[in-house]
Amino acid sequence: MKRILLMATMLLGFFMTGMANDGSQVDTGATAWMITSTALVLLMIPGLAMFYGGLVRSKNVLGTMMHSFAAMGVMSVLWVIFGYSMSFGESVLGGWCGWNSDFVFLKGIDTTVTDGVPDLVFSMFQGKFAIITPALIAGAFAERVQFKGYLVFIAIWGILVYNPLCHWVWAEDGFLHHWGAAGAIDFAGGTVVHISAGISGLVAAIYLGARRGYPQRQLRPNNLVMTMMGVGLLWVGWFGFNAGSSVSSGIETAQALTATQVAGAAGALMWVIVELLHHGKATALGFASGVLAGLVAVTPAAGVVQTTGAMALGAISTIVCYGALIVKDKLGYDDSLDAFGIHGMGGILGAVVLSFFIRDSWMADAAAASVTGEWSVWDQFGVQAITVVIAIAYSVVLTIAIIWFVEKVFGLKSTEEEEMMGLDHSYHGERGYGMMNPN
Amino acid sequence: MKRILLMATMLLGFFMTGMANDGSQVDTGATAWMITSTALVLLMIPGLAMFYGGLVRSKNVLGTMMHSFAAMGVMSVLWVIFGYSMSFGESVLGGWCGWNSDFVFLKGIDTTVTDGVPDLVFSMFQGKFAIITPALIAGAFAERVQFKGYLVFIAIWGILVYNPLCHWVWAEDGFLHHWGAAGAIDFAGGTVVHISAGISGLVAAIYLGARRGYPQRQLRPNNLVMTMMGVGLLWVGWFGFNAGSSVSSGIETAQALTATQVAGAAGALMWVIVELLHHGKATALGFASGVLAGLVAVTPAAGVVQTTGAMALGAISTIVCYGALIVKDKLGYDDSLDAFGIHGMGGILGAVVLSFFIRDSWMADAAAASVTGEWSVWDQFGVQAITVVIAIAYSVVLTIAIIWFVEKVFGLKSTEEEEMMGLDHSYHGERGYGMMNPN
Amino acid sequence: MKRILLMATMLLGFFMTGMANDGSQVDTGATAWMITSTALVLLMIPGLAMFYGGLVRSKNVLGTMMHSFAAMGVMSVLWVIFGYSMSFGESVLGGWCGWNSDFVFLKGIDTTVTDGVPDLVFSMFQGKFAIITPALIAGAFAERVQFKGYLVFIAIWGILVYNPLCHWVWAEDGFLHHWGAAGAIDFAGGTVVHISAGISGLVAAIYLGARRGYPQRQLRPNNLVMTMMGVGLLWVGWFGFNAGSSVSSGIETAQALTATQVAGAAGALMWVIVELLHHGKATALGFASGVLAGLVAVTPAAGVVQTTGAMALGAISTIVCYGALIVKDKLGYDDSLDAFGIHGMGGILGAVVLSFFIRDSWMADAAAASVTGEWSVWDQFGVQAITVVIAIAYSVVLTIAIIWFVEKVFGLKSTEEEEMMGLDHSYHGERGYGMMNPN
Repeated sequence: MKRILLMATMLLGFFMTGMANDGSQVDTGATAWMITSTALVLLMIPGLAMFYGGLVRSKNVLGTMMHSFAAMGVMSVLWVIFGYSMSFGESVLGGWCGWNSDFVFLKGIDTTVTDGVPDLVFSMFQGKFAIITPALIAGAFAERVQFKGYLVFIAIWGILVYNPLCHWVWAEDGFLHHWGAAGAIDFAGGTVVHISAGISGLVAAIYLGARRGYPQRQLRPNNLVMTMMGVGLLWVGWFGFNAGSSVSSGIETAQALTATQVAGAAGALMWVIVELLHHGKATALGFASGVLAGLVAVTPAAGVVQTTGAMALGAISTIVCYGALIVKDKLGYDDSLDAFGIHGMGGILGAVVLSFFIRDSWMADAAAASVTGEWSVWDQFGVQAITVVIAIAYSVVLTIAIIWFVEKVFGLKSTEEEEMMGLDHSYHGERGYGMMNPN
Repeated sequence: MKRILLMATMLLGFFMTGMANDGSQVDTGATAWMITSTALVLLMIPGLAMFYGGLVRSKNVLGTMMHSFAAMGVMSVLWVIFGYSMSFGESVLGGWCGWNSDFVFLKGIDTTVTDGVPDLVFSMFQGKFAIITPALIAGAFAERVQFKGYLVFIAIWGILVYNPLCHWVWAEDGFLHHWGAAGAIDFAGGTVVHISAGISGLVAAIYLGARRGYPQRQLRPNNLVMTMMGVGLLWVGWFGFNAGSSVSSGIETAQALTATQVAGAAGALMWVIVELLHHGKATALGFASGVLAGLVAVTPAAGVVQTTGAMALGAISTIVCYGALIVKDKLGYDDSLDAFGIHGMGGILGAVVLSFFIRDSWMADAAAASVTGEWSVWDQFGVQAITVVIAIAYSVVLTIAIIWFVEKVFGLKSTEEEEMMGLDHSYHGERGYGMMNPN
Repeated sequence: MKRILLMATMLLGFFMTGMANDGSQVDTGATAWMITSTALVLLMIPGLAMFYGGLVRSKNVLGTMMHSFAAMGVMSVLWVIFGYSMSFGESVLGGWCGWNSDFVFLKGIDTTVTDGVPDLVFSMFQGKFAIITPALIAGAFAERVQFKGYLVFIAIWGILVYNPLCHWVWAEDGFLHHWGAAGAIDFAGGTVVHISAGISGLVAAIYLGARRGYPQRQLRPNNLVMTMMGVGLLWVGWFGFNAGSSVSSGIETAQALTATQVAGAAGALMWVIVELLHHGKATALGFASGVLAGLVAVTPAAGVVQTTGAMALGAISTIVCYGALIVKDKLGYDDSLDAFGIHGMGGILGAVVLSFFIRDSWMADAAAASVTGEWSVWDQFGVQAITVVIAIAYSVVLTIAIIWFVEKVFGLKSTEEEEMMGLDHSYHGERGYGMMNPN
């Protein structure tokens, strides 16, 4: 009898332990890292505000920073109300977006747990991506849009472009999630975040026209020092962005972390080398651009590629983005802070080229999981290319429609006087550097 | 024999495993998040230094930043010596404060663990709250206090106001911890941190009098750009502040994280809307104030309220704080950086109004745990209101006494000449922006 | 039969559970903290860029920041290619460095786990130390080196000085790792990071000569405000640096966290006190220097010393470093940003004096583990002193050789014209503060 009791106790012990792995119980370690990731991705918002804010003219510094910060307000609220539902609910409207009324106001996921991580944490983590994506676009039409129009633009863009794209690529039943043998690969947002933002930015920059005086007058950055601080915070935050996208705390997380570090470094170093060869001087802005080019390119690939592949992606991305900036100067459109040149080009490059750097273990898993039992690099390359084309086409069409609508109904492009006076004065009634005229 | 050996081995295995949940063993995940939280709350100190530092005149920028940083030095040391003992020791002196000689210099908690988290981590996490609270006060009397007097003031204030309040509300045997059916709710420091700081700031601002020239001359911020960077870091750090206050890494942590994000966003967005309606322009400073108003209000409530409640709290807090700033201008006292207007008002609002947004599961637990088996929203409302009144009364009386003492014995208010020359020159012999007069 | 089945099940349960502790399975909590640590140490790079960048003249602000950032590019890439192998591979070349061809490009550690933490995470964490060490050196010869020469210098210095030192002290078979009864203690890089950087900086500063105009003209900092922001980020990042060096998430991590917080605070407070006694004014730069002096001194000691010991180390370090800066002014060499005065002196002090503050439990373990079964404070003191002497001697000799080589082959010291025009113009073709001359 005693023995049976003892054994029962032991059995209980075993089941209590086993429970920790069945998905309905919290894994405190994975949760710790995912909460931290969420904080790190939020750090990218002040980082982006500083990066962009330093690159414009003094009269627009606050207005430009507010483009990033305002997204933190608008998109957070929309995400909680129905953005999460549109993105990660079950497919509706023929798969155009998702919906799950339990997700509205996050009511139904208040205490649920998936794979050891509370669903609220996943929702908040994903929400940060919905914040940062429209904020990235703002770089393309910096120094020339109205604040109210901008708020309306990002709200509609988030609803009509971001949420559906996010659903197609990342939701369990999103159509791109299952395209081809192994589904489109977008580990941390190459397509959903960077391509959509870069392309939409390009469209907006062209549609709205250049800043007055561009390109005849050189429009110099007001504070490259702040831009450098910003890129530092962005790099740190990117660890949350990419390594957090494993939604766990383990081997894959470690791989994504490594890929992120290596690609950013390789991108930066390559930009320094290219500039030294090209001009004999390596700019700080170039270093920062190289960091971003590398980080953007590795974003879709972070948990999937080998370390050497990540290094190669970073370096190649810098060469491509460097080229894109030269072409921009030739073509003459005014993508003010190179949202397309870096995020668009780097994102496209990463999403497509990652196919050639996938680690063997991932390939084996993909082949095993595919219906046909087969998987090839070129198949994946095709899936990636199609995904990119769809994301581009969708972003172009919708962004044109949204800008047309916002411009028409609310006003978006600054008037000449507003632009001359600067965003800070015109829309915020403030100026950034009071110390220049102390009272 | 062999079988018994086997069973003994299994038994050992079971106990080794079981131990992980009995509180005396470390939960590496919860510990990871709590250490991270501690780092995030520390990030709020440079964040606050930047936020406050950007709002004063150039001649006071370093002195104002030093108010935040100096708290990091003074309060850390006091906390380790006896602050933690006064706050989390067993009640002594009729419950006025706590004491546990094992906590002095943290000697007795060097290797102890509670609920999976090393006590040293809990002590360091809580110590950050003791640092930030006096630093918040400094905003109320910015630009007009002596540095040495300030150091003495925060030291005494920490000992006589912060530690007792912390004990009453958060210590196991603190009298407010057990008030009413379920105890006063102060999840992450609405009463202990924001109300005490806001009220003490108001008292100090009135007692010390306005800055010379206020309100006739407009005293404009020297660097709103830095203020915006600061609010970005504060928001990120607040995740540690609120989600860390669960002292775990699980569902409650996730709820606090979500509430924090949502309330900050709702507060910011509401401030933008109110300003647009009121003035037609939405200021960056307004956005930042809205973020803080929302975050402050949700602080006492973070782990307890529903997501929609957090959103409501954030939005309501902004309206109340916005009103408070208008009233301040009418009343004419000089709460320079609105320590009372934001932290005091937002904290009071959050602490009281949270009663109406508590999640059902929490209510059920509270009723089950109460002596009477009952619990009602209005009971809780009463407990919250009484707690707030006690915190206010105590802070008012003690702060007056401390300021009177410090002013008398050490000197606190700047002389006219010191104020004219600026804190940076008068007390630190430096100036913030050397670039304005390059050598 | 049934019973046997039951027991088998239990046995399986036990082994599944046991596996979590045998080193080959991931501990999600420890991994979460180590990834976070890695991000926090990366935050020290923008932190250092801001700290150093604020202290130079405006014309050198970007160039100085680039010294930190460039290390992020160069060292990351080298670390992945073969730095990790040289540091943590098996001893080769008579123990001069390590090598493991599996570590080249991190190929062989893609999925391996040690003590619950993926080896990739450990590698990335350690890689951050390899980045920050040469970046620290740059403070010693700020405002007078060529950018290309600097890139070559840090690359060679990393390979020939950092990697071997790291191997000797931290690799399993490093000869200093086993010196004496318990091995040299260098918890988080007193010898490997701060002494090597400080000494190499001193050598470089003397070898390259002073900045033109020094010390006759006072060379004032361009932006102490940014320097203060930087020190804030450094303090936060240092939690990753020190508490991450436990490579776990438990008691030792908590002890290192506590020691770090306390030593930084004590160092800062002591500097304020010393300056007040000495000059009557406490500078912000002094506070920042005190923070660093305290943090540097506790770095080798963080997981090993008692809390009171950490406080003492911080305070003593400040007194020693304060003295060192006075001596520097007398001797007249130009260690521009006090890389030696703070990192060298603080590191030496910490590495040696920690012997007297070791916690009892550590001593008992050391005695038990030693071959002789004995261990004494004075033995350890001897080991520490010898380690320091070796690190100093090696750093001096190698740094002289490397600088000689780089100066000869690539050029390192700025020409008079380049120095007059400033690093920003001469090497980067940019200027930091465009707002001063808005376009």
